[in-house]
Amino acid sequence: MAQAIRALAMDAVQQANSGHPGAPMGMAEMAQALWTRHLKHNPAQPQWADRDRFVLSNGHGSMLIYALLHLTGYALPIEQLKAFRQLHSLTPGHPEVDVTPGVETTTGPLGQGITNAVGMALAEKLLASEFNRDGHTIVDHRTYVFMGDGCLMEGISHEAIALAGAWKLNKLVALYDDNGISIDGQVAPWFIDDTPARFKACGWNVIGPVDGHDVDAVDAAIAQAQGSADKPTLIVCKTSIGKGSPNRANTAKAHGEPLGAEEIRLTREAIGWTAEPFVIPAEIKAAWDATDRGAVAQAEWEKRFTAYAVAHPDLAAEFLRRMTGELPANFAEVAVEAVASAHEKAETVASRKASQIALETFTARLPELLGGSADLTGSNLTNTKSTPNLRFDAAGAVVKNEAGVGGRHINYGVREFGMAAIMNGIALHGGFIPYGGTFLTFSDYSRNAIRMAALMKRRVIHVFTHDSIGLGEDGPTHQSVEHAASLRLIPGLDVWRPADTTETAVAWTMALANKNRPSALLLSRQNLPYAPKTDADLITRGAYVLAEPTEVGRKRKPQAVIIATGSEVQLALHAQAALADLKIAVRVVSMPSTTVFDRQDRNYKKEVLPPKLPRIAIEAGVTDFWWKYGCDAVIGIDRYGESAPANVLFPMFGFSVENLVQTVRKVLAK
Amino acid sequence: MAQAIRALAMDAVQQANSGHPGAPMGMAEMAQALWTRHLKHNPAQPQWADRDRFVLSNGHGSMLIYALLHLTGYALPIEQLKAFRQLHSLTPGHPEVDVTPGVETTTGPLGQGITNAVGMALAEKLLASEFNRDGHTIVDHRTYVFMGDGCLMEGISHEAIALAGAWKLNKLVALYDDNGISIDGQVAPWFIDDTPARFKACGWNVIGPVDGHDVDAVDAAIAQAQGSADKPTLIVCKTSIGKGSPNRANTAKAHGEPLGAEEIRLTREAIGWTAEPFVIPAEIKAAWDATDRGAVAQAEWEKRFTAYAVAHPDLAAEFLRRMTGELPANFAEVAVEAVASAHEKAETVASRKASQIALETFTARLPELLGGSADLTGSNLTNTKSTPNLRFDAAGAVVKNEAGVGGRHINYGVREFGMAAIMNGIALHGGFIPYGGTFLTFSDYSRNAIRMAALMKRRVIHVFTHDSIGLGEDGPTHQSVEHAASLRLIPGLDVWRPADTTETAVAWTMALANKNRPSALLLSRQNLPYAPKTDADLITRGAYVLAEPTEVGRKRKPQAVIIATGSEVQLALHAQAALADLKIAVRVVSMPSTTVFDRQDRNYKKEVLPPKLPRIAIEAGVTDFWWKYGCDAVIGIDRYGESAPANVLFPMFGFSVENLVQTVRKVLAK
Repeated sequence: MAQAIRALAMDAVQQANSGHPGAPMGMAEMAQALWTRHLKHNPAQPQWADRDRFVLSNGHGSMLIYALLHLTGYALPIEQLKAFRQLHSLTPGHPEVDVTPGVETTTGPLGQGITNAVGMALAEKLLASEFNRDGHTIVDHRTYVFMGDGCLMEGISHEAIALAGAWKLNKLVALYDDNGISIDGQVAPWFIDDTPARFKACGWNVIGPVDGHDVDAVDAAIAQAQGSADKPTLIVCKTSIGKGSPNRANTAKAHGEPLGAEEIRLTREAIGWTAEPFVIPAEIKAAWDATDRGAVAQAEWEKRFTAYAVAHPDLAAEFLRRMTGELPANFAEVAVEAVASAHEKAETVASRKASQIALETFTARLPELLGGSADLTGSNLTNTKSTPNLRFDAAGAVVKNEAGVGGRHINYGVREFGMAAIMNGIALHGGFIPYGGTFLTFSDYSRNAIRMAALMKRRVIHVFTHDSIGLGEDGPTHQSVEHAASLRLIPGLDVWRPADTTETAVAWTMALANKNRPSALLLSRQNLPYAPKTDADLITRGAYVLAEPTEVGRKRKPQAVIIATGSEVQLALHAQAALADLKIAVRVVSMPSTTVFDRQDRNYKKEVLPPKLPRIAIEAGVTDFWWKYGCDAVIGIDRYGESAPANVLFPMFGFSVENLVQTVRKVLAK
Repeated sequence: MAQAIRALAMDAVQQANSGHPGAPMGMAEMAQALWTRHLKHNPAQPQWADRDRFVLSNGHGSMLIYALLHLTGYALPIEQLKAFRQLHSLTPGHPEVDVTPGVETTTGPLGQGITNAVGMALAEKLLASEFNRDGHTIVDHRTYVFMGDGCLMEGISHEAIALAGAWKLNKLVALYDDNGISIDGQVAPWFIDDTPARFKACGWNVIGPVDGHDVDAVDAAIAQAQGSADKPTLIVCKTSIGKGSPNRANTAKAHGEPLGAEEIRLTREAIGWTAEPFVIPAEIKAAWDATDRGAVAQAEWEKRFTAYAVAHPDLAAEFLRRMTGELPANFAEVAVEAVASAHEKAETVASRKASQIALETFTARLPELLGGSADLTGSNLTNTKSTPNLRFDAAGAVVKNEAGVGGRHINYGVREFGMAAIMNGIALHGGFIPYGGTFLTFSDYSRNAIRMAALMKRRVIHVFTHDSIGLGEDGPTHQSVEHAASLRLIPGLDVWRPADTTETAVAWTMALANKNRPSALLLSRQNLPYAPKTDADLITRGAYVLAEPTEVGRKRKPQAVIIATGSEVQLALHAQAALADLKIAVRVVSMPSTTVFDRQDRNYKKEVLPPKLPRIAIEAGVTDFWWKYGCDAVIGIDRYGESAPANVLFPMFGFSVENLVQTVRKVLAK
């Protein structure tokens, strides 16, 4: 059976003349052991809530999972395998969620798959704790991961395994494809880790090494792993990369290029595979086929779920809602409440505080919100009264309060990248909307996971506080300069930099409502005054006319537009007043989200930014970004900040009413 | 003596009303043991080549190092400590190299300090191997690191310690401030690592736990660490954060806020410190003072160096040159050779190959070039004939060839962030110009270390290959879209995206010549034709007129300008020809480096981009960036790519001569 994987992998890579045959060939028996003897899944229903999750963390071995999905009966016909790595096929170079049925997460950037898996296993544990009832176990599945040396060399793997250990994720089982080869060759000179010892040091159960080409040995190891009560399990599988290929096995050459026609011929001979390319003998296909087994398993679960729904109808309905990712039916009201309350109170607070105020409302009404911070809870203000700290007892169970409610705020520790990729895993699993905080500058650490959320179109919300030189004394290592602009460049990510409590509440609303899009909220450390406005609804357009020029109470036609975001909106409003004294009429446009504004229709854009009016943008970040709005001048900061109090830095770097007034006058004098 | 550190730390933080007193107070005895009994340094000459390096990886404890530098006699008067965290003081919120004498690297972003230290220790080992001779040991110093839990939670710490172990950096000694507290509180729920076991698993020697408040115990541990022949050493020091403060010690509250006047009073009482704030009793100052000891140590070394210079005058001169970071005297000739050779041969190769061709010349003539790749050597093409792989023998010595030359190309493994931060450490140490490769998309992983190189103004060269959808079949996880633009936003980083062999050779020349600036070279996977040009010298301006429109051999006045970079320059040239057939005259500007072009004088800019000519930019990346050049149209890609062959993707996303021609015509028709 394992030879079928080898044959498909080498043939598909050869046909594409591109790809990685070595990994699938090396992991064929591991896959056979897991997929034919343990994995709980239903090829006809890849979205079944209680399926086991399988993550191929070494995503370059994509032909492994495509072969498995094809062989076990998913809607992935052989034609798709023939179109491996071709445009719009279901078999892209690296596995992509939502492209191929049965692929749980997009992998390829190494180390992130295992970290997604930690998020999935956490989600399972939390859902089980929240929804299962005596006699009714409706959430009970495992998360399996295949990973290679590459994943283990990446630093993020440390963050993942440390948290998996701390959280006692006993239903997480990682199989390590220990082949001793990476792209640069035999790994010994650059990879001397004692991996089993390393995992044990992080609270894992370790099994093996076992012979990764012995199906029974791997099978037994998995069975043993399933018995772990309070620890995640690593199974070390000793394998040969490119196993089966007489001349390429155990070489780096097997990793990333086709074997070539001659070597494929030799491999077929060596493994005794006589079928034509892309032909799987019927008896082998039948042995792999998991359609019936899957249907039975899901039917059994459906039966149990029906009984659960009878006993606990509200819980059952809530579980189904949560797993579809739909917001509560009253979400619109909740959002209005949050926004209206902010609007009424008109408080002067830091926008990070405004975020916490909004979160108080949202976390109280949306049990799916699962917060956290990378060891900056008191600074990011990601916690609320409704989100006690998540803790596990000695046996690994979620600690609950007297009301039976478990924690909903995660102390991720100082692990920004891990947090982001774990949040991706939580969102992929379903049942939760994850959000997590750190300083905006350290979005650098998690950047590729933010990108992956955008690529995968998952609702993950990043709370990035201390969003500029306004952070003050911590100095340039901690002061964001380029980050707002550079996050806006990530396709599919919504970026918000709200100016006050209302804009912050709307930003949260939009982030929550955007089911297929991650969002980043950039929030100030320092207090921001409320910006008086008439129609908070316009904030949802990403940019809007916050204040038109007036003279003795009469509206005047604006001569120019000031575009501002976040903490600089107040400067724009003051400059507008100062310019009015000079008989210069300017409009102030608040633009909390350029990404959202860019999706508005052309007419609305023209209304907000009339084509003929000069535009001056001000933002405490790099200027380059703002020219896209046809600005005549941009006030920004194109160098690193300084360690000093914020109120010293702002005017020093030109973020002052005076400089803004002068800049507007200069533009108008041109 | 340790109390002096406590007093200075709490007083300075109090005066600034901002900062982190807990860490310096907790590490005071560790610092006393290291700085008064072991550290080889000369306060009067912070740049002495053979000094020990000290890295405060938990940089928020900056008052520790400021106190130490002040007390031991560096040019850091008490007034500077009083101005802690104030504008333009020598005592910024986090330690910054080149700002404060004696600070070896800028720390604060956690995990990077220890990783810089690995780079420093590697540089020491390689320089010692290269320059020491029998009877002449001129390079022989250690690298010491203080670090906290935060550094150990960050994933990059895994990359750092794995490589330090693999490289057998026995002169690296890390002291772990094991206080059990991070910002969110007692770390137990989110940090269960068995740190000693973890380090042992990565090939480290581990000492302790020792009582971190017992100077003699720490002293003995350091002495023991110095005896390690082939392993780096971790010393686990059990400490109390905020030690000395009766009510704040051992609490998260000690971490990041001033103690307050009352608690400071109580602390003074508790530790028996009676001196006024910022006053150090003379006998304590005298006990700390390392001026004499430092002068003696350096004088002794100078004597040895003189003897070395007599025995090996060429080596001594070369060592001095290398440590100042000056290029060889004939660098200009070497550069001209590389550029002229590219120009003459006019080869059609991928720009990653062009980079390797240039590197062949530069690595042959610049022994300070120290290359590497994050497990993509064959793809990044960072290796050359002159740079054999760096290897260490069982005893930890650098393996040399018959000519006595050691390796100069580092297999970093799949550790992009670690590679970048290690390169920063190598550059900070001096003696080498580090460069390293990965795919451009994975610049995301190392982004904050790239930023740190720019902030620190260090010459570190990133080779980022596979720079666009031109990467093809690997698909969107591996295809850069936003990366070129987002790297250009990092202040102080030069970004090059060369179009052919000549531009690539010039990019390398500029990157090497820029002593105080990191550079990123974005290079294609796919072949690029040579772009005929008359004056290769103009490439150094970042952008230049590559081709003026002609008609039957006569020059014509351009009606528009096409701006292109890298792989799109060829499209621009073909479009120019196609447009000429339509009697439309366009100029083609090649803009390999926007960052360099932006620094040119206004006249040159106007010459290249005449103010009245319409501009059309084309680059296989996000469009947002290009509007800064006043473009009338931008051809780019504002979504993720697809897995398919590059030649399918380019036209599909509008990167075709036809689309460019049409776009120019549309702009001109406006």
